[in-house]
Amino acid sequence: MISERIKNLRAQMALSEVDAWIITGTDPHQSEYVAPRWRTREFISGFSGSAGTVVITKDEALLWVDSRYFIQGAQQIEGTEYKLMKLDTDGTPDPWKWLAENMQKGTKVGVDGTTISIDAFEKNSALLKKKGVSLVSTPDLLSFWNDRPEVPCTKIYKMKDEYAGFTTSAKINFVRIKLRQSEADWTFIASIDDIAWLTNLRANDIPCNPVFVAYVFISLEKAVLFVDKRRFDDSLFLEISKDYEIRPYESVYDDIASLTRRGVGFYSPEKISYAFAPAINKKRNLRGCDITTNLKARKNPVELEGMRRAHFLDGVAFANFMASLDPLGSYTELEIADMLESERKKMEGYLGPSFDPISAFRENGALCHYSPSKEHEKKVTGQGLLVLDTGSQFAFGMTDLTRTLLFGTDATEEQKRDYTLVLKGHLALARQIFPKGTRGVQLDVLARQFLWCAGESFMHGTGHGVGCHLNVHEGPARISTALIDVPLETGMVLSDEPGVYKAGRHGVRIENILAVQSYTETEFGEFYNFEVLSMVPYEKKLIDVRYLTDVEIGQIDAYHQWIKDQLIDYVFEETKPWLEEATAPLKRN
Amino acid sequence: MISERIKNLRAQMALSEVDAWIITGTDPHQSEYVAPRWRTREFISGFSGSAGTVVITKDEALLWVDSRYFIQGAQQIEGTEYKLMKLDTDGTPDPWKWLAENMQKGTKVGVDGTTISIDAFEKNSALLKKKGVSLVSTPDLLSFWNDRPEVPCTKIYKMKDEYAGFTTSAKINFVRIKLRQSEADWTFIASIDDIAWLTNLRANDIPCNPVFVAYVFISLEKAVLFVDKRRFDDSLFLEISKDYEIRPYESVYDDIASLTRRGVGFYSPEKISYAFAPAINKKRNLRGCDITTNLKARKNPVELEGMRRAHFLDGVAFANFMASLDPLGSYTELEIADMLESERKKMEGYLGPSFDPISAFRENGALCHYSPSKEHEKKVTGQGLLVLDTGSQFAFGMTDLTRTLLFGTDATEEQKRDYTLVLKGHLALARQIFPKGTRGVQLDVLARQFLWCAGESFMHGTGHGVGCHLNVHEGPARISTALIDVPLETGMVLSDEPGVYKAGRHGVRIENILAVQSYTETEFGEFYNFEVLSMVPYEKKLIDVRYLTDVEIGQIDAYHQWIKDQLIDYVFEETKPWLEEATAPLKRN
Repeated sequence: MISERIKNLRAQMALSEVDAWIITGTDPHQSEYVAPRWRTREFISGFSGSAGTVVITKDEALLWVDSRYFIQGAQQIEGTEYKLMKLDTDGTPDPWKWLAENMQKGTKVGVDGTTISIDAFEKNSALLKKKGVSLVSTPDLLSFWNDRPEVPCTKIYKMKDEYAGFTTSAKINFVRIKLRQSEADWTFIASIDDIAWLTNLRANDIPCNPVFVAYVFISLEKAVLFVDKRRFDDSLFLEISKDYEIRPYESVYDDIASLTRRGVGFYSPEKISYAFAPAINKKRNLRGCDITTNLKARKNPVELEGMRRAHFLDGVAFANFMASLDPLGSYTELEIADMLESERKKMEGYLGPSFDPISAFRENGALCHYSPSKEHEKKVTGQGLLVLDTGSQFAFGMTDLTRTLLFGTDATEEQKRDYTLVLKGHLALARQIFPKGTRGVQLDVLARQFLWCAGESFMHGTGHGVGCHLNVHEGPARISTALIDVPLETGMVLSDEPGVYKAGRHGVRIENILAVQSYTETEFGEFYNFEVLSMVPYEKKLIDVRYLTDVEIGQIDAYHQWIKDQLIDYVFEETKPWLEEATAPLKRN
Repeated sequence: MISERIKNLRAQMALSEVDAWIITGTDPHQSEYVAPRWRTREFISGFSGSAGTVVITKDEALLWVDSRYFIQGAQQIEGTEYKLMKLDTDGTPDPWKWLAENMQKGTKVGVDGTTISIDAFEKNSALLKKKGVSLVSTPDLLSFWNDRPEVPCTKIYKMKDEYAGFTTSAKINFVRIKLRQSEADWTFIASIDDIAWLTNLRANDIPCNPVFVAYVFISLEKAVLFVDKRRFDDSLFLEISKDYEIRPYESVYDDIASLTRRGVGFYSPEKISYAFAPAINKKRNLRGCDITTNLKARKNPVELEGMRRAHFLDGVAFANFMASLDPLGSYTELEIADMLESERKKMEGYLGPSFDPISAFRENGALCHYSPSKEHEKKVTGQGLLVLDTGSQFAFGMTDLTRTLLFGTDATEEQKRDYTLVLKGHLALARQIFPKGTRGVQLDVLARQFLWCAGESFMHGTGHGVGCHLNVHEGPARISTALIDVPLETGMVLSDEPGVYKAGRHGVRIENILAVQSYTETEFGEFYNFEVLSMVPYEKKLIDVRYLTDVEIGQIDAYHQWIKDQLIDYVFEETKPWLEEATAPLKRN
């Protein structure tokens, strides 16, 4: 089947006169997670992971994946002509470098212009050009995909204004203020979580991501929303039509040139696909991070209240789940995720998971992004660590939480040491006070320092932005080793999730959600710190207090005491003994 | 006098048809410290600090300085028409932004093309262009400076090959290997500490910086050194002529076009002045950090041996100095610096200070870069902190060291707390183990974390690269909040110097020199750590052990024990009791 598809694609490539075609696997909105319609990477290669790149040439088929997917990638392409390319392993060039090195001078590399950002197209085009290879934007060449899913068209609903904090009309105004400050006349937005935030609308186009495909154009006079109007019920359509001129989703490609013809535009070259470049990529226009991305990142007090409420309810559910779990019992990974989900479903406002749950026992925990499925899952029984990374969508907020749990009786020395080193870093980041202007990359080491001193490390970021009843990964700020020049600002909500992964043995990850808040002002300026939103006790059986300082013990005890005070009146009667025990002060040596 | 000079400059500006002229204060090599010939900023403004920018327009004269020089700048321009512009204070634009905002459309801003890098010229030219203002390269307009010092021409001497580790011939080869790897045919180098390193030559063109003004052109076949040949004695000229074709320093401007006409060039747009742009700034040429800057930064084993030896001898001298100092005595700031200098002079291979000594008592210590002078210095007597930041040039290495000393009997609680918080950060950075690939910006917070948690901070970098019998500040790596994408590599030598500065009260700074070394390799990859080179005890009377963890106390005690073991047999007999006492284990509470 895969070889048939490759053959068909090669025929299309020949018709389009390109010598190689690159499948980025994203959608026309440069989304991280995509609707089934745009699972092109999976269609052409069989690989179902969330990140990867496919390159098809006349006689080669290659799949690039990062370390999360080395094993899964290899399994899923077995028996096909695909060659697995392991990103960031010694000597493996990335797809673009590979093309630059392997394509003959004078050849053409094609890419569907809707699936690559202007920024990525320009950069990689320049790279290929040096070797005499040209990068061209082609239409989608997958016309032979017969049963291809439709463009998503799930029902659009409103996020209540009292959860959003501001009406969409107020938000349009915020955007216009920023436009004026930048001396720009209009902006064009393709990022669909930005559009959901801006419009206070939600839908279910992408599993776990409550978004809908759309584009927005805002000028000082006009606000146009490109979206399929069948997706609204009549009253919502009437309401949203007050703030936006609604035009068909597909008409954006025809309309954009005339809308953007005049004035100075502002757009994100990382979010607008290259298919819009002919209309948008003009010298007079300004480039930058989308105005809405920056506005969305700093949660307003109402959104923060919703986030706190979500974490409180999630804390109740998690405590009830933990109390019902027998660490000496026998489960499967999915059963455990389902038990937690069933407790969450009892909470008011709960809408579903915010991403596919990770429930990974023993050596599965060493695969950072392992998700169990009915076909591939592990028995959870006997001694071992379970990495449980899950999250909840609420009508007013969202959670993302990882706890590593001990099954069986005693943990090994290595398990306790790994858990405690990860916890020390997690705590150090959470308690750090820092001046206004500090970027995530400056704080990242706080979560890594103890692991590094033990010759250990983790390869993922320490923290990502989190949406409010929106996507679980949000920009522009991050806490990671990437040199991103975005200061942490009050209202930003980020994860704190160091881990350690020992292939074939176990994984540990501990994740809380933090909100940046103002802390103090001194003769040295303004200082911020983190408010911890998550309300779930750490796994005390995995803490080795010999590695902890008094400050760290105090921090854990205070956190646990706070959780108990918050939750004790709201958990099931049967949960109380567990909560009391789980939040009791640590026994010191 | 200053007003006369401004008048003369304005006359020159009129002749050159520029409406504003900007004086960057650097030399044709973009040096941080410059020879008297290029102290143009001081000549035109009277301001003698090491950093600042002057802008002269038809009716305004402005001096920009950073926070180090707010006070000194204001004093030195008093009574002139200069307006002081405080960099990085709210609402103050930098000089280029000021020009963009204040110059009329259609006007011309001039700059001596030899005193601005290609990179800075291009960036600022684009900035001004947006406002319709053009930036033009002019000749030097200070022709009316009658008693202007000559181009420096101090005697050039050789750094012994057995101190340099490699002959210049070997180093030329290293450069050619890198040229080939970059697929380039030639490089042109203007950075004079790079040229000193490359040629194994030194001189005294700039106080404390053992460099000489020169340019180097290296192709796969040719090596040309542009330098005044009168500066060599005959035998050295003969020797260096074996490796380089020597051409007159001034002829570089005539010769560069023909030398660089063919092939692909590699140059640093941050180090090559805009005056060379017509010859060098071609599309086919590659840009990057100078090859020699990267080679120089990673000290070879012989250079590291020299650095260790320099720090050992400096440790002996510092101990003898400390033993002779009476904390209850009465001195001046300069007397103390002189006492230290006289002990250093007794050491074999000592050549002089590596920068102007900072000896700053009480509130002077709060001025980060205060240097005492005969006219302005303070009595050191009674209770107070002295910040002593000094360094030594040795024939085989260099040191840079800061200790904060207590005068009088007991320290105040605030003094001890500030000292201990700075020390905790200094120690945390020094003991951190980190994976290969880590950049300085990722480690910087380790030195700041404890201060930040107390609402305190310092505004300078944590660490700079240090030369081997060369300049005290060296690129390309730094440990600072700047997002510089240069990983720390084995052999790099950097300072670790957090501080805290309380205006009107006191300053604290503690500085050691660290060398990056290989530490271990684990399943998580290669890890590095720091070797501490400095051998001077901390001021125990200022350490409040209540703020220290066991790890920190152990680190201090081990460091002191090591110093004692290294130095005890080599200090004066009279110094031994002081050394014993200063290196004895901390008393725990």
